[in-house]
Amino acid sequence: MTQITLTLDAVEQLAQSCLLANGCNADNANAVADTILQAERDGCHSHGLLRLPGYVAALKSGKVDGHACPEVTAVSPSMLRVDAGGGFAPLALNSGRPALIEAAKTHGVAIMAITRSHHFAALWVEVEPLARAGLAALACTAYMPAMPPAGGNKPFFGTNPMAFGWPRGTQPPMVFDMAAAAMAKGEVLVAARDGHELPAGTGLDRDGKPTTDAQAIIDGGMLLPFGGYKGSGIAMMIELLAAGLIGERFSFEAAAHDNKDGGPPRGGEFILAIDPSRLGGDDWLAHCESFFAAMLAIDGTRLPGDRRHANRAQTPKTGIPVPEALLNKIKDLGGQLP
Amino acid sequence: MTQITLTLDAVEQLAQSCLLANGCNADNANAVADTILQAERDGCHSHGLLRLPGYVAALKSGKVDGHACPEVTAVSPSMLRVDAGGGFAPLALNSGRPALIEAAKTHGVAIMAITRSHHFAALWVEVEPLARAGLAALACTAYMPAMPPAGGNKPFFGTNPMAFGWPRGTQPPMVFDMAAAAMAKGEVLVAARDGHELPAGTGLDRDGKPTTDAQAIIDGGMLLPFGGYKGSGIAMMIELLAAGLIGERFSFEAAAHDNKDGGPPRGGEFILAIDPSRLGGDDWLAHCESFFAAMLAIDGTRLPGDRRHANRAQTPKTGIPVPEALLNKIKDLGGQLP
Repeated sequence: MTQITLTLDAVEQLAQSCLLANGCNADNANAVADTILQAERDGCHSHGLLRLPGYVAALKSGKVDGHACPEVTAVSPSMLRVDAGGGFAPLALNSGRPALIEAAKTHGVAIMAITRSHHFAALWVEVEPLARAGLAALACTAYMPAMPPAGGNKPFFGTNPMAFGWPRGTQPPMVFDMAAAAMAKGEVLVAARDGHELPAGTGLDRDGKPTTDAQAIIDGGMLLPFGGYKGSGIAMMIELLAAGLIGERFSFEAAAHDNKDGGPPRGGEFILAIDPSRLGGDDWLAHCESFFAAMLAIDGTRLPGDRRHANRAQTPKTGIPVPEALLNKIKDLGGQLP
Repeated sequence: MTQITLTLDAVEQLAQSCLLANGCNADNANAVADTILQAERDGCHSHGLLRLPGYVAALKSGKVDGHACPEVTAVSPSMLRVDAGGGFAPLALNSGRPALIEAAKTHGVAIMAITRSHHFAALWVEVEPLARAGLAALACTAYMPAMPPAGGNKPFFGTNPMAFGWPRGTQPPMVFDMAAAAMAKGEVLVAARDGHELPAGTGLDRDGKPTTDAQAIIDGGMLLPFGGYKGSGIAMMIELLAAGLIGERFSFEAAAHDNKDGGPPRGGEFILAIDPSRLGGDDWLAHCESFFAAMLAIDGTRLPGDRRHANRAQTPKTGIPVPEALLNKIKDLGGQLP
């Protein structure tokens, strides 16, 4: 597979121009392009340019409004709703974030619910700014049915990612971002694209039989929750928080309403932010740093997100490798390099 | 193993009298005995009378104050701290619960932090009343080091249970309660007691080698997080919420300070309650029931907690089986049957 190396600026302009050429206004194009840029910058290629054709498909079919203007409403002083207006999630997230941070700092805890949005990105991008603002943050979202509840063999839960961020003062925040599936859908897409075999226990094929073939999972098969019934419980909790609690569509409802254009379905996102300085004591930061230090003193351990931070330090120098076929596809869709 | 069948009343009186005989006042004895009763009633024997000798040891050594009088403080209108005063957790939970429910109903979301407590019980007992009050609830607590972070081979995280409850109107709430370990410590204790072999992947022995022998895990070995690095991330999140965020001891700190009397160490608990009626729309309950119905329509699935509800319906008729050796031990400690 031929790879073309692009600068970070080129990645961003490629994404922006492609989105502008397909019906996004500048605000929406910039917000989505920034999300794509952050994924590529941190080596998270499964959530970067690879998803751009899906964004474009959703714009072209009319499912997603590229001119959406999100509206932020305070349901209570510590509960915000951001109506994304049928647009992509990034602009909605940017619109609500300042109010979420302020509410969490004022009241100690706050929730932001994103509704009527189309989410297609990595969640760590969304909790990291909250952690940088000094808040603990939890975010989750449901998606299309991709895996069965424990004991079942029909897709029902989405891969349902959950991200958690923790502030570390002058150091980069600790952020993990995990699908409730044994493997993220994006990683399965990458494995299928690259022809890599998956570990046992990742999924079932269309007949409900275990498989290690990524394409068999994509072609009517399904992922399995990680860790058996416990991961299934977490996937269910995410459905309830990111759909039931905020009045948005469960994965099974999103699938029933989706036009199958390949872009993200309509759905919601649940974000919780908590100020650790309120209950944690004056020394909460040092206290928690002592925890990370003790953990990292154990051979073989590392903090989640360390690989992303390492990539982030390198990619401004090394550039971003982009498969030539993907680059050509994006150019065909109207994307332009600087 | 000879089992003696006790009525629910007998279980409660046995626990109460034993706790009263060992330094608890009536309020504390009643609260702990009720927690033990609920565990036995629901068939959760690992968290019932089996733990009573540990409660007694902690009282006898002076580690736990059986006369503790918890203090509830509002840190903000939506953040409560309950200082358990060095007592067992159940009375602290009972003391703070009404204010937590009121705060969550008033503001949509609220947090209750329990500090200076000794926690030795199942978490589902603690989220179920919140779900019965119409709230979504998440609770977690850290404990003694029992399992390594992903990649490590020294105990560092507690088994760190997390429970989640969801209100279902006139039906019993959906409640799951899972350790972040591949198996709950209580189940390992039961397996060791009963001589049952554990599934592969449950833990490592004292040399860091995989084992299926429950006793080898107890004797200086360790449990593994469920689902590999994802379960490890969840165990870490629980440490940060139930210790860092609320200014209490991480598992590794609890171990350093504990007197090793066999009772629960000092620690904290994090409880989050959210009112789904605030963001979920007028039809939130019916909407969520349609989700459960669609899930249960898939062959082989069931709701977490169903087994407990089934046991709860039966045990008033069948009584509670208690191993004779355990019953005699409790009697030796001052427990009395009616």
